[in-house]
Parts: sequence; structure tokens; C-alpha cells
Amino acid sequence: MKTSIASHLLEKVRAENPLVHNITNQVVTNFTANGLLALGASPVMANAKEEVAEMAQLADALVLNIGTLTKETVESMILAGQSANKKGIPVLLDPVGVGATTFRLKAAKQLLEQVNITVVRGNAAEIAHLLEVDGWESKGVDAKAANGDVSALVKQAAKTLQTVVVITGEVDVVSDGEDVLSIHNGHEWLTKVTGTGCLLTSVIGAFCAAGERPLHASAAALLFYGVAAEKAAQYTQNKGPGTFQMELLNALSHTTGNDVLTLGKIGRNVT
Amino acid sequence: MKTSIASHLLEKVRAENPLVHNITNQVVTNFTANGLLALGASPVMANAKEEVAEMAQLADALVLNIGTLTKETVESMILAGQSANKKGIPVLLDPVGVGATTFRLKAAKQLLEQVNITVVRGNAAEIAHLLEVDGWESKGVDAKAANGDVSALVKQAAKTLQTVVVITGEVDVVSDGEDVLSIHNGHEWLTKVTGTGCLLTSVIGAFCAAGERPLHASAAALLFYGVAAEKAAQYTQNKGPGTFQMELLNALSHTTGNDVLTLGKIGRNVT
Amino acid sequence: MKTSIASHLLEKVRAENPLVHNITNQVVTNFTANGLLALGASPVMANAKEEVAEMAQLADALVLNIGTLTKETVESMILAGQSANKKGIPVLLDPVGVGATTFRLKAAKQLLEQVNITVVRGNAAEIAHLLEVDGWESKGVDAKAANGDVSALVKQAAKTLQTVVVITGEVDVVSDGEDVLSIHNGHEWLTKVTGTGCLLTSVIGAFCAAGERPLHASAAALLFYGVAAEKAAQYTQNKGPGTFQMELLNALSHTTGNDVLTLGKIGRNVT
Repeated sequence: MKTSIASHLLEKVRAENPLVHNITNQVVTNFTANGLLALGASPVMANAKEEVAEMAQLADALVLNIGTLTKETVESMILAGQSANKKGIPVLLDPVGVGATTFRLKAAKQLLEQVNITVVRGNAAEIAHLLEVDGWESKGVDAKAANGDVSALVKQAAKTLQTVVVITGEVDVVSDGEDVLSIHNGHEWLTKVTGTGCLLTSVIGAFCAAGERPLHASAAALLFYGVAAEKAAQYTQNKGPGTFQMELLNALSHTTGNDVLTLGKIGRNVT
Repeated sequence: MKTSIASHLLEKVRAENPLVHNITNQVVTNFTANGLLALGASPVMANAKEEVAEMAQLADALVLNIGTLTKETVESMILAGQSANKKGIPVLLDPVGVGATTFRLKAAKQLLEQVNITVVRGNAAEIAHLLEVDGWESKGVDAKAANGDVSALVKQAAKTLQTVVVITGEVDVVSDGEDVLSIHNGHEWLTKVTGTGCLLTSVIGAFCAAGERPLHASAAALLFYGVAAEKAAQYTQNKGPGTFQMELLNALSHTTGNDVLTLGKIGRNVT
Repeated sequence: MKTSIASHLLEKVRAENPLVHNITNQVVTNFTANGLLALGASPVMANAKEEVAEMAQLADALVLNIGTLTKETVESMILAGQSANKKGIPVLLDPVGVGATTFRLKAAKQLLEQVNITVVRGNAAEIAHLLEVDGWESKGVDAKAANGDVSALVKQAAKTLQTVVVITGEVDVVSDGEDVLSIHNGHEWLTKVTGTGCLLTSVIGAFCAAGERPLHASAAALLFYGVAAEKAAQYTQNKGPGTFQMELLNALSHTTGNDVLTLGKIGRNVT
């Protein structure tokens, strides 16, 4: 895949302004909504089981994030997910902290069984936990440094889960079970601000809504997000994570197709 | 109405520091609380049906926002609203995304029936949906550009709902069913940050608490908020929505009565 | 206590990166998570009764904040608290607005009875309400200026509640029922941003996790937080509360052990 696909897709997202329905955790609602607006998409948040199916019918993508899950929210996610499946829009799953508790693992598996998921995005530990593979550590909802073979993990995960899988970390990888693409953008500051992973999942949702096949749409979103993070880091200088949070929103709004074209770094891993 | 009323009321809000009780959506809690604090009012958030009636008794205004509604929250809103009515404080309704789902429309109508609402604030599409008038489009929780006669809509809405109604957009209008005032301040950046409408409803609540008749208090709040947004946009230059979000909080704190007096633009529409 | 203890403990927190499990209010989730990350700790938020006990087993400290309490959350807090007690990690209680409603007061008392609390942090009015002592006023969730003898109050509270108690205000005081320490850092801007008290409680949690006795760990956290606030205020100049919110996150990340050593002001009150 070439960065020109990402560049083109970014412009398509901005032209089409897809509505992304998020059922997400309490920590990141504001940041996610502002990030989607900054990018040029439209966010909507709705969690009540009385309305999620109807809301998903209006949406162009649905994002399910298990960050501060309750029993009621799991029900809502299934209702929304099945409604989204009926409409044929992409459904994304962000298994936040899935390795931390049995409740999260059961919920994530239930979602994968009862909803047709298009893309799963997590850190290496989360994806490994979903597969019940050992050797990947996490701390609460954050991954420790990955030292295993992430390319093999992402490919295996995509095969097993029968979705596109994105693993983010120092290098981001994405696979549909056949191909593995690696994205070499992004910045360490992203680990210093809460919700940057959650927001990324919603950004991938917006790119998937714009219509490429999910493997390429995901890679395009990763390229865009990584380039935006690099630009944000430049403006942040060394001021701190408060400034970076603000500059990331600025950069999501300012990063152009041409930036993605020229600064994006994508590789294809043979595993 | 002259801008001197708004200028005077702003100073009264700051002197009296009204307590605004918000039952609002998950996306905007932090931004709303910070915006009210910046203005010089006191925010309190409380949603549990076990405490909302008691909390409303302590408050000087109550704001009901249906953004991420649940069945439980509707109950709480009615309890809080009736408690506020007993105390005689203003109650504001923000019908976020009321056109998106049946659940939201039913909840909004229930609130309008069972609680004596002082002011309803929404975009044109939301207000039109409340009245079940056609021809106003929305996208999720955001309005598309209004191309109908907003002045006629706001007046009709105020008559039908028997409240003061505020419709925000490129021009803001407010009516009590007789008069229609239009406010020509504000900035396009407001549409790039989530929760600026929700926060505005709470700001109107603070102004209503300071005691003018709701038509004028609402217009005063719109003038203040619009002028603050213009000042924030100036400081933002073109840096992006992250910077604007921060600068809006700054401007809510710095905008003076004199700024409102000299920069506020208010008209009276004959419809 | 000398500021060198605080300086040393800050470096220990950063080296150990404790996981702080927060069951907190909707308003401050994002700010709390970002503040803990900025400091160098790891935040996790989880509220569902299905998972809180398990999550607390992974954590190094647990923070219970009653800001937007529901009946369900009280249950979760007790489950999490008892799990934390079993593991032997510090448990902190932030009785936000406990004087505002009967529901909050009952919940706070229930938590104090059924969970072994290590540290309680509040403003003077909140702590007085917990003790049902008169003469301390609040406004919603914010304290009015304290004009009583805070040192006597904090000592009495620590004796009665049998926890370490922190009262924050113009001067912060902390007591274990025997000693009373006073911290003379901080900045008025802290009262202009929502959640700065809530975040502080979580920061105290991180310091308690690093292992000093709770009296000293609390004083150390207060010194660090107060010095960080002063540095943030310097960078904020007079721009406003939006800028201060951002600069506080920056300062939590940049404030060094040496800053705390040289700028911290701690006294010992004989009462």
C-alpha cells in the first residue's frame, strides 16, 4: 500500500464527514468527540439500550470500547452492533484493558461472537489476551513494551478473530490474516495522554466509513494519526502532556493529505 | 434590549456566583463545569435519583441535557425539575440530538409535560423536531446549515412550548412567543469543539439565576458567550480546535461587562 | 518532616509507576487519568461491580470519590474497598460535596464503616460535615473560605475517623490524629479549575502506594502538588483557567524532586 491511498482517503473522510457512533468509556468521551470533530468527522455518543439500535442506523461507523464497561453497556453494544451489521456499516472493537478482568474478557468475547466486527484495535497485550496467548504484559489498561514478534501476533489474531486487527505500539501493525502492514509514524507523547488509543480506534472508524477495504482504511488512519502526532509533538516542544493533548487536536485538524503523502512511512512485513 | 442589560447582568452573575445544577451528558461534564467556573458561576453535577431533588433545592438554576440519556436519568431529571419548580428557580432544557432517536424525543416531551421549563435551547433542527416541523436537517447531534426562517421557528416554538426558546446557529435568536431578539456574535470555531452548545445552555442558566426575565437573561448570555467566543478566536489565531477550546475557557473568565457593552450586537426581528 | 522526604518519594513514585484504581465522578475522569500519567503513575478507571474487586487486586492504591455517585457505584466502592483491604493497599476517600445531600453523607459513612480507609481528603466544609460539626460552609461542591481553626478540625477528624485526614484550602493541613503538618504551597488558580481536588486525592494515592507512612506520603503529595501548581501559575501568567488546566498537567510532569526540595514549604502546627 502506498501513502497516496491514505492521503486520498483522508480527503474523502473530510468531504463525506462520516457520523461515527461511539459507545465508549467515561474517561475519553470528550477527547474522542473533539478528535473526530478536529479530523473532520461527526461524533455521536449514545449508550442507552432504548436508543442505540436506532442511533446506529443513522451512523456511518460504530465504535465499541470496553474501557469502563457495565453490564448494561454490554447489552447496548450488542444491540448497536447487530443494528450496524444490518445496515452494513463497519463496527470497531477496542478491547481496553481486556486482560485486567474476567468481566472485560467475557464481554469482549461475547461481542466478537454476537456482532460481526470489522476491525479490532488494541495494544499487544490486549490482543494477546483476546487470543489467550501468553508472554505479553500489561499494566492496568496500558501495555508494557512489547518484545515479542508483533507481526506474527497480529496476523494470527486476524486469522483467529476473522477481523482486521490493528496492534499499536512503537511500530503499528495491521493485518487481515494474509497481509501485514507496518506503520512507522507516531510519537512517544501519545503514551503520556489518556485516550489516544481510544481516539485512534474512532479515527479508524471514520476512515473505514469512507469506504476502502478495512485493511487499507486502517493503515491509512494509522498513517494519518501517526503523522498528526509527529506534528503535534513538534509544536509541543517539551512543554508537557497538557500541551500535547491540545496540539494533537490541532494537528488532527491541520494535517493534510499532502502531509500524509510525504511523511507517512509504511512497510509490508513478510512473516 | 440594549447591550447594557447584558453587561450589567454579567457583573451580577459574577457578584452572586449562582450555583448551577447540571444533569448533563457524559461528554461535556468537565467542559461545562470548567466553563461555569470560568464565567464566575458555581457548577454542581448530580444525577442519582436518590439526591437530585435535594441538590436542586440548593441550586439557583437547573440544567437538563439529554445528550447521553438513560432511563434512570430521565427519572432523575423529572425529580430534579419538579424540585426546582417548587423552589421557583429557572429550569433549562437542552434537547441534544432530539431528532436522532424516538427515546430522546419521548424523553424531551415528557420533561416538557412534567416539568415547568423556563428556557429551551437547541439548534434549529432540534427545535423543529420538538415541534415536529419538517424541513430542518441534522447530522447526529449537530445541525446542518439552517436555511429556513429561524425567526419564525423560534417564535412558533416559544408559543407552542410555552417557554422561552433559544435557537443557536450563525445568528442566534431568542423568543418568548411575542418578541424575537437576534444576536449577531459568536464564531465558527464554536462548531469545531464538542459541548459548546451544552455549555451555553448552562451559561444561560447562570444568567437566568441572576434574575432578569428569561428572554433578556437568555439574550444577555448569548451576547456574553458570543463576544467571549470572538475573543477566544482572536487568541486562537489559526492554531486549531484544541487551542480554541482552551481559549474559550480563558475568554469566559476574561470577557468583561464593558466588552459585552461595546462588542455585543443585538437586533430585534419583526416576524 | 523535611521536604527531602517529599523529594525522595516523588522520585520513588516515578520509578515504581504505581497503578491507581479510581472509582470517581464523571466530571473528572479524563483530568484525573491525565494528571496521574503526567506525574508518572498509571491510572485505571473501573466502576462495574462485576470487575472492581478483581481490578483492585491489580492496583497499588484505590481512590473512592463520591462526586457523581449512584446506588450502584456505592456497591462497587465497597466491593473494591474490601478487596483493596485484603491486598493491603492504601484506600483513599474523597467525600466530594458530602454536605450537599443526605445520599452522599450516608454513602460516605457507609464507606468509612465497611472499608478500612487510609486517607480522607476534602475541603474544610466536607470534613466538618463528615464529623457533623457546625460552622463550616460550602457551596455545592466547593468550600467557602474557611475561617475556623483548620488545624484543630483536621486533628479531631483524624481521631474520630481513625484515618489520616487532609484538609485542603489556602493552607493545606494533614493529620494522623497526633501530629498536624501544614503545607504552604499551591495557588488560587486551583480553585478555578474543576477536579483539581479530586486529582490531588489520586496523587496522594500514588504517593501512599510508594510506601511511606500515610501522614508523610500525604504531606509529600501536597508539597509536590502545591509546587507544581505554583509553577503552572507562573507559565499561565494571566491567560485564564483554560491555560492553567493545561499548564498544571505540564507541571505535574516537569516538577522535579529538586523543585519540591527547594520550593516546598512545610510546617508543624502545635494545636
